[in-house]
Amino acid sequence: MKWLNEEDIENIAVGAAVLGTGGGGDPYIGKMMALSAIQKYGPVKVITVDELEDNQWVLPASGMGSPSVLVEKIPSFKQLVAPLKAFEKASGKKTDVVMPIEIGGVNSLIPVAVAAMMRIPILDGDAMGRAFPEAQMVTFHLDGLKPELVTLGDEQGNVVTIEPANGHWSEKLARNITVAMGGSSIVCDYGITGAQAKKSVIPGTLTLARQIGALLKEQRTAAIHPIVQMLDILDGYQLFKGKAVLIKRGVQGGFTRGEANFDGTDDDKNKTCTLFFQNEHLLAEIDGKPIAMAPDLIAVLDEETGMPITTEGLKYGARVVIVAFPANEKWRTKIGIETAGPRYFNYPYDYVPLETLVKEQSPR
Amino acid sequence: MKWLNEEDIENIAVGAAVLGTGGGGDPYIGKMMALSAIQKYGPVKVITVDELEDNQWVLPASGMGSPSVLVEKIPSFKQLVAPLKAFEKASGKKTDVVMPIEIGGVNSLIPVAVAAMMRIPILDGDAMGRAFPEAQMVTFHLDGLKPELVTLGDEQGNVVTIEPANGHWSEKLARNITVAMGGSSIVCDYGITGAQAKKSVIPGTLTLARQIGALLKEQRTAAIHPIVQMLDILDGYQLFKGKAVLIKRGVQGGFTRGEANFDGTDDDKNKTCTLFFQNEHLLAEIDGKPIAMAPDLIAVLDEETGMPITTEGLKYGARVVIVAFPANEKWRTKIGIETAGPRYFNYPYDYVPLETLVKEQSPR
Repeated sequence: MKWLNEEDIENIAVGAAVLGTGGGGDPYIGKMMALSAIQKYGPVKVITVDELEDNQWVLPASGMGSPSVLVEKIPSFKQLVAPLKAFEKASGKKTDVVMPIEIGGVNSLIPVAVAAMMRIPILDGDAMGRAFPEAQMVTFHLDGLKPELVTLGDEQGNVVTIEPANGHWSEKLARNITVAMGGSSIVCDYGITGAQAKKSVIPGTLTLARQIGALLKEQRTAAIHPIVQMLDILDGYQLFKGKAVLIKRGVQGGFTRGEANFDGTDDDKNKTCTLFFQNEHLLAEIDGKPIAMAPDLIAVLDEETGMPITTEGLKYGARVVIVAFPANEKWRTKIGIETAGPRYFNYPYDYVPLETLVKEQSPR
Repeated sequence: MKWLNEEDIENIAVGAAVLGTGGGGDPYIGKMMALSAIQKYGPVKVITVDELEDNQWVLPASGMGSPSVLVEKIPSFKQLVAPLKAFEKASGKKTDVVMPIEIGGVNSLIPVAVAAMMRIPILDGDAMGRAFPEAQMVTFHLDGLKPELVTLGDEQGNVVTIEPANGHWSEKLARNITVAMGGSSIVCDYGITGAQAKKSVIPGTLTLARQIGALLKEQRTAAIHPIVQMLDILDGYQLFKGKAVLIKRGVQGGFTRGEANFDGTDDDKNKTCTLFFQNEHLLAEIDGKPIAMAPDLIAVLDEETGMPITTEGLKYGARVVIVAFPANEKWRTKIGIETAGPRYFNYPYDYVPLETLVKEQSPR
């Protein structure tokens, strides 16, 4: 995957919807943006974290806000690059490489569109290894880096540059500005050197997303059900099989928040499962007991095809398999759990690793 | 008044509280900031609009948000100049002269403190001729100028630079950022050339504030009651004499909003007066009929001393004289009334000039 082609982008879109459920429904907004940018500006070269020069300047680009809103207000090309240009102006640093801040959802492919427009490479790696809903939930933060600058742009043409007092203020101001902008924005934050990227970036996640996407898309010819193969690749667990019976979803404070209830089928008959989400699914309970929690990753897949169903795309009656994957080890540290664990999101549980919860609930 | 001394600043603080009622209570915050800046950085030179060179760069500095909050979070020196420095960095233009965006209230003296710290002159003039609550209510807007850049700083050390799509977005984003910052901020917007200042600035208003303040402070030795003298200087009217009986006041959406009710005394016995405010008093009614409305200026004065009582400082039982002054002619145009007239503030009246309303209600 030295250069991204259209098939790569389609596969990344599918894989990214597994790695982050808040990424806008099918036909993935990120895919549309990346495909149209590549059609207009040419292909995008992928570079690995190892290939970075220590003094290269790497800048993440992403969408912020509610995916429910992003679907309604697709960013223009001009909006997509305005935050990068504002970042370059305020920092005085030219961007050598664009990177995804999060590999999950729409934010896997927004930076590909930005890279295409700027005719610079995209990094094969991200700062979450999945998707998280808040700006400070990045490995840069875990490694003690501060967002010196944050730039935002919207489809009206507004551009805002923040020099935040700290990471907390970075999230608070950027979130409020995004809400004022109408609920979604394009953001650049946490510019880093190649040397820093080698320490902090979770490598290979663009390739991982592509690999998952390819697997799911090829499922019709596969001998083994693709969900089984995916669980194998990602060391994941099947948590629950069931039918969506109630979905509560609203846009609140710049996020899509809510919960979804499922009645069990097959082996899970007579059980119920509830997913709680803030853009991303953050907690899964079976019969009222936790079975998976952030920072571990929870995903909802179509029972038949294995294709991911986003928080936006989930509908009453959908027959699904709910799966979960262990977070990268960086997230299972004390600071990782403080930053993106269940207590941070106001759920009444201490973090317990997915593997332990699954063993406790199903000792088979 | 070539150089501002401490007495000038005390007088400006008093006069500014007549010209804008939202300016923080006694002991005026603006006065404290200006006096301490002058003590630390030296005196401030005043330059008149006529004295400006056409190519000089004039930058307004002001406080934004709720005066109720500003009283609780007095800006540090660093916060005071951070927006000016951010504006210089983003625009590439060095500031030659600081100016008040509004002469009313705390914003008459915040720019004096900024000028002292930067060791550059303050302009004798402003862009309102009074105080108004929203950022686009400036003569620059009436003259078709757009805010190309807006910079904000807070006491936490956050600095934000906005390149707004237009004046509406400038106000909306700056207001939301100010709310996110905790309710008050220091702002620079509408940088202009000396040539533009000569067209758009309302000249001499710093001198006017000082003159009103001096008049009121010298009242004990004056033969004529100072309120009478002030009405004479400003072509104003006494609307009502009475006692504050009910004050409803809250912080909402970055403003102090509310209303105040007064029972009449002396000639106004058996009448009632209601003032409606959003930081500034914007509408006065006597017995339910309008007697003065924005953009004309409404002020509340202490019955005995003539000293202004701000929206913050007004207390139950206060014995007051309510006065009003005609707005500068720039505000009585079609665009002026659209921008800051009663309909803009959602009051159910078409604008009628103060002189007409007074003549209709008291044909004496």
